[in-house]
Amino acid sequence: MRVALSLSKRGLGNVWPNPAVGCVLVRNGDIVGRGWTKPGGRPHAERIALDQAGAHALGATAYVTLEPCSHFGKSPPCASGLIASGVTRVVSALEDPDPRVCGRGHTMLRDAGIIVDTGLMADMAQQLNAGFLSRVMHNTPLVTLKLAGSLDGRSSLANGKSQWITGATARAWGHTLRANHDAIVVGADTVIADNPDLRCRIAGREKNSPVRVVLDRTAKISPQCALVATAGQTPTWLVVGEEYLQTAQQVFEKTAIKLLPARCADGHLNLHDVLHVLGHKGLTRVLVESGGRLAASLLKTGMVERLVHFQAPGIIGADGRAIIDNLNLADLAGMYRFKRSGFASAGQDMMVTYEKITD
Amino acid sequence: MRVALSLSKRGLGNVWPNPAVGCVLVRNGDIVGRGWTKPGGRPHAERIALDQAGAHALGATAYVTLEPCSHFGKSPPCASGLIASGVTRVVSALEDPDPRVCGRGHTMLRDAGIIVDTGLMADMAQQLNAGFLSRVMHNTPLVTLKLAGSLDGRSSLANGKSQWITGATARAWGHTLRANHDAIVVGADTVIADNPDLRCRIAGREKNSPVRVVLDRTAKISPQCALVATAGQTPTWLVVGEEYLQTAQQVFEKTAIKLLPARCADGHLNLHDVLHVLGHKGLTRVLVESGGRLAASLLKTGMVERLVHFQAPGIIGADGRAIIDNLNLADLAGMYRFKRSGFASAGQDMMVTYEKITD
Repeated sequence: MRVALSLSKRGLGNVWPNPAVGCVLVRNGDIVGRGWTKPGGRPHAERIALDQAGAHALGATAYVTLEPCSHFGKSPPCASGLIASGVTRVVSALEDPDPRVCGRGHTMLRDAGIIVDTGLMADMAQQLNAGFLSRVMHNTPLVTLKLAGSLDGRSSLANGKSQWITGATARAWGHTLRANHDAIVVGADTVIADNPDLRCRIAGREKNSPVRVVLDRTAKISPQCALVATAGQTPTWLVVGEEYLQTAQQVFEKTAIKLLPARCADGHLNLHDVLHVLGHKGLTRVLVESGGRLAASLLKTGMVERLVHFQAPGIIGADGRAIIDNLNLADLAGMYRFKRSGFASAGQDMMVTYEKITD
Repeated sequence: MRVALSLSKRGLGNVWPNPAVGCVLVRNGDIVGRGWTKPGGRPHAERIALDQAGAHALGATAYVTLEPCSHFGKSPPCASGLIASGVTRVVSALEDPDPRVCGRGHTMLRDAGIIVDTGLMADMAQQLNAGFLSRVMHNTPLVTLKLAGSLDGRSSLANGKSQWITGATARAWGHTLRANHDAIVVGADTVIADNPDLRCRIAGREKNSPVRVVLDRTAKISPQCALVATAGQTPTWLVVGEEYLQTAQQVFEKTAIKLLPARCADGHLNLHDVLHVLGHKGLTRVLVESGGRLAASLLKTGMVERLVHFQAPGIIGADGRAIIDNLNLADLAGMYRFKRSGFASAGQDMMVTYEKITD
């Protein structure tokens, strides 16, 4: 199962709206097939492992990180494939909450006389599938907020200069982080200030860059910016306020930008609604790389599940721009507390990861 | 030498103005004596180890973390003691730059026919003796700046509330940090806002709390504050502007506070001069636990050698008070960069240590 979970990671960021699954077939102590969900979500992990094993699947045990599917989608159900292959036991880490599956995959297998054990390494599987589970159960993607700044919490100088606070290693890791997310989310102000390209600059992953999502209530970004210019190659979505949809349609008429209307309140996009819109589009994991203002608004929604904090060993001072804007806390009980889940040295910098505290 | 260096740490914070030295005597592979500088700076490490070894010192090798002293101070020179004991070899980590010693200890030993090797684990000895070396060579103590706050660099809410951002473990470690410094330095504003006691609350170390130093140019702290009230038990120094010395003498006339005048410039204490005043008083290691304003001023002097950063896994937002105040950087090349030297989990919090970058 540990191997299957490890294989499943290869799908993170490029299989949405599907889950990133890993599958290992073992017969007499030998691995006879390995598979993981391929880019775009198909073929499924089980299909690949079964094809690899061929006749060796007969009498084998299949380790899968999520319940095999039971429904005809764009491919025949994996449960049927496992049954047909002659596998005699299936060990799965989690039940699939997708209403089209939801236990029926396991039932199909058991009905065919296959031994089914579930729940092995369920915690780790839950972690790895958190994005898919969030989409299926809450209709919203898993939200990871990336923060990068000085040790005193500044993302740039007062004049906006930020190149470079963190070093080359941290920046390269930032691109790896992009690669295992379905989409990068930024605010319109970031696009206007930095004209970023937001693609994943890792050899072999460039063509598979995540969707770029810009939150831009009033459709104010320039149709000449880098994101719009490259929207033909890398999907780029603009989330606009419902009342600005028509304006946006005119401004971006001849571009490859996809417009998504969302509800507004008090002159701001309603971030709950924005995340539902993104969930409906199938996104399972989004990485927010915003300025301090959007980061603060998002924190207030309580929907930030993970933080990745790159921290340079330098001090900028209070006149620099804050990584998180005002939160107007009345007392310390209201501090947005997380649980530290990881620490790594990224060259001279640190990468510290945090998770939401769940009671 | 590793053992001797480890023993020497026990003296940090309670032997000033003397160096914290460790000494181990080895004969035929057995340790026959161990010593470290005792509180107050006497007896010296070598004397203690020699007394412990007695006749077993004959033919032994002495490992000492700093060159043995050669001058009659309040005790006879350790070099003479080593010679008299019959030790045949002395291995020392560093030459003592104190002009009263400065190679003469080693020379005395060699002249008596003792084999002297120097420089073993010199790097680590330099680290441990950094405070003493700073005092002797630059007339200023080693300055360590302690920072404590949220992951976004805030030390308190906008309203000043800061109890508690970091957890019990980090706070306990903060007291250990106090224990191995000669003095705690704060600004007058911190005293006025928090009325702190700044003593070391570690069982067994309370009576040995470091000197409390308040930088208070205009002598504005209240003679009724906790620091003044306890100044009879724990030494408390008030550094005032030269032109406020007389005022301060009147205000604190009947208290146990010691007044130290320092030069001023542009309505602020000249921090270079303040550190020289503290160095002249014999301090070798000071821990600054100030607010963001003094921290920023001190950084600007370039005299902060070490940072200890306690960071909680929570976010307060830009409206909280900054751990470091404005630095007015014009470009990122001016960012105050340090070298990360250590990381530890302090319960839920992190303790990250940094050192000044020396070229």
